[in-house]
Amino acid sequence: MSSAIPEPVTKLIEAFSRLPGVGPKTASRLTYYLLRAPDDFSLGLAQALNNLKAQTRFCSACFNITVADPCLICSSSERDASMLAVVEEPLDLMAIERTGIYRGRYHVLHGAISPVDGIGPDDLKIRELVDRVQNGQAREVIIATNPGMEGDATAMYIQRELAPASIKVTRLARGLPTGGDLEYVDSVTLMRALEGRSDL
Amino acid sequence: MSSAIPEPVTKLIEAFSRLPGVGPKTASRLTYYLLRAPDDFSLGLAQALNNLKAQTRFCSACFNITVADPCLICSSSERDASMLAVVEEPLDLMAIERTGIYRGRYHVLHGAISPVDGIGPDDLKIRELVDRVQNGQAREVIIATNPGMEGDATAMYIQRELAPASIKVTRLARGLPTGGDLEYVDSVTLMRALEGRSDL
Repeated sequence: MSSAIPEPVTKLIEAFSRLPGVGPKTASRLTYYLLRAPDDFSLGLAQALNNLKAQTRFCSACFNITVADPCLICSSSERDASMLAVVEEPLDLMAIERTGIYRGRYHVLHGAISPVDGIGPDDLKIRELVDRVQNGQAREVIIATNPGMEGDATAMYIQRELAPASIKVTRLARGLPTGGDLEYVDSVTLMRALEGRSDL
Repeated sequence: MSSAIPEPVTKLIEAFSRLPGVGPKTASRLTYYLLRAPDDFSLGLAQALNNLKAQTRFCSACFNITVADPCLICSSSERDASMLAVVEEPLDLMAIERTGIYRGRYHVLHGAISPVDGIGPDDLKIRELVDRVQNGQAREVIIATNPGMEGDATAMYIQRELAPASIKVTRLARGLPTGGDLEYVDSVTLMRALEGRSDL
């Protein structure tokens, strides 16, 4: 008896359902919420969606999302061009920006090497990173891929590719997360924390 | 250093964040997901949002969401016009439809009486319900508001308003949810289950 649901409603439920982490129930709830909300709420969301792709592009240098090309970070003279932090996704870049202590530039890979998902080095911006290092001012590349199997594999691959450039290649420290409880830390993290212990 | 996030991106994150149950983190995740997805994904969602309000209205009889007025249920000769199920929201109507056993019609109140939220009887489609009962073929009104304080208050108010019409007014049964575990049932539900116990 789904004939009782008008097509514009089911269409929006379907569209919401295709978003990651949004199931059919949440999609229904969002849709019926919008039906009751003022018109300019759903129209504003529609406008923002239309503008998202129309008004943004990837920075031709670092591949971060940007309106102007090159992006604000790449074109800023206040950012240290001798340091490049290599991240998997734009959201990872934002996480590092939020620390407020990094003054270098970035390189966004747009993923990590993952044979299971059929993602190889050529699907990422690794070739562009190597070119950028060979032709640019970078003296240190900080590999800030995720601390997991795919991020580790990507880091190792990049390290090997950058070896001929004889440049400093570093990786973010691994260890106990601040605020965590030793009792609940997984053993791989604890192992890395032991291996990486430092003098006091 | 949020200057690193282009405006079209922050605008969509803001728009997503205004949806119920969507926090800033989920909004970011959805936005960056759409940035990587094919263009027609975000454009399709935008189109569905634009169509939602443009192509739907409330049924002038039952106030359910519909494209045609009156809605498919109100205009169907297969639905029993002598029974009216009164629900708070269109999603509640859908829940009853999914049982597949109800063959009557509906009346959508679009909310429940809630003094805390400043919602009184005049903000709901109660006057329209009373008119419909007085001038229509309904012989039984099944009050299917939510089983809680607001739904109960709304049910009592409607019952009083319909008293002069000397019509049968019923309410959905209260008791243990099927599949639940007695041990974990709250005591109000258990109390209602005891009060409403039936002979075997």
